[in-house]
Amino acid sequence: MTEIRFLFDYVSPYAFLAWKRLHRAAAREPIVLRPEPVLFAGLLNAHGQLGPAEIPAKRRYIFRDVLRTALREGIPLAPPRTHPYNPLLALRLSGLDMDPAARIRLVDRLFDRAWSEGGGVETPDDLSPVLDALGLDAPALLSAAGSTEAKERLKVATARAVEAGVFGVPTMFVGEEMYWGNDAIDHVLDAIAGRSRPLPAELLDRWEHLPASAHRR
Amino acid sequence: MTEIRFLFDYVSPYAFLAWKRLHRAAAREPIVLRPEPVLFAGLLNAHGQLGPAEIPAKRRYIFRDVLRTALREGIPLAPPRTHPYNPLLALRLSGLDMDPAARIRLVDRLFDRAWSEGGGVETPDDLSPVLDALGLDAPALLSAAGSTEAKERLKVATARAVEAGVFGVPTMFVGEEMYWGNDAIDHVLDAIAGRSRPLPAELLDRWEHLPASAHRR
Repeated sequence: MTEIRFLFDYVSPYAFLAWKRLHRAAAREPIVLRPEPVLFAGLLNAHGQLGPAEIPAKRRYIFRDVLRTALREGIPLAPPRTHPYNPLLALRLSGLDMDPAARIRLVDRLFDRAWSEGGGVETPDDLSPVLDALGLDAPALLSAAGSTEAKERLKVATARAVEAGVFGVPTMFVGEEMYWGNDAIDHVLDAIAGRSRPLPAELLDRWEHLPASAHRR
Repeated sequence: MTEIRFLFDYVSPYAFLAWKRLHRAAAREPIVLRPEPVLFAGLLNAHGQLGPAEIPAKRRYIFRDVLRTALREGIPLAPPRTHPYNPLLALRLSGLDMDPAARIRLVDRLFDRAWSEGGGVETPDDLSPVLDALGLDAPALLSAAGSTEAKERLKVATARAVEAGVFGVPTMFVGEEMYWGNDAIDHVLDAIAGRSRPLPAELLDRWEHLPASAHRR
């Protein structure tokens, strides 16, 4: 079994698409998915960049691209209730100690609720019925998700991701190798299947030390 | 024949990868490629966003992703001489009045020189031998590329792209539909082959009017 670390935020439709594709792949390939919530806004802040939904032209385009990709992949998709929304409680909840299989079911349900069913994943009222339906202890988990420890855990996970070079979601790790974005899924599946070719070290080294001959004003 | 408008800047390795893939596709499919130079830095300025090479973690990742994609697609790739570099002269040259087939050969050669051969495409000394080898009149074209008219043409092309909602390169148009990025090529080829499904208008409308319930601080 190969482990795929899956760093995500429920706010990202590309994280949703990538999750659904990997979740399906896990049903037929020797893959263990390890979902790890991180705060996308924290990644953007750390790198001083704008998110796609913060650039109006990009936001418009992305709606179309996400819908087109969902149609192609046969993934049911509907706009969420609001966007952007506050994913903090759902992320903290998803990072609590729990059985790995339960975490995968929870992440899958919350992604579906947000991006397939037009539901919200912001408030205790949004989240409680989802936990109930999964047979989980909603009051205990929601209380734990509001704790200082859960808040700190999400902060630390996000900070560690930044240190590891993560700048967006979804980000996947197969061993040490990092993959970013729904469009990197084919590379991830290549890596799992042993079809990746090694990246020539000499070329990577030249890239790394490439001088700039122009800068944007 | 279906026309694909291809908006590009030589500074982008993803524009290079997309160009090579479409150029190959054009050899077997009823496609006419219409390359249209735009200044990527101008797009970034217009939308107030950082380019991928301006975020160190993203820059490092992108080198690996570009190389991995080139290996998968069988596209010879080597780092350019410098990066970022100043693409203005090459872009202005590529936007001059010329035979459409000559423009396609020129764009293809300049992309190869920058991204397959480790050469430069910045100065008249870089560009002159390329024009010579293509049987083009190097002194006349380089002089025209330095003219106020050529400068204005690139500015206008970039401004029009911004007005049309373009925020990055490569951007492709098939009819009215816009596609962004090397990873959108499969969608472009679907559109060409008549395999695109119409995007449900009701869902697009809901997206368009989606309220936000959170904003990044």
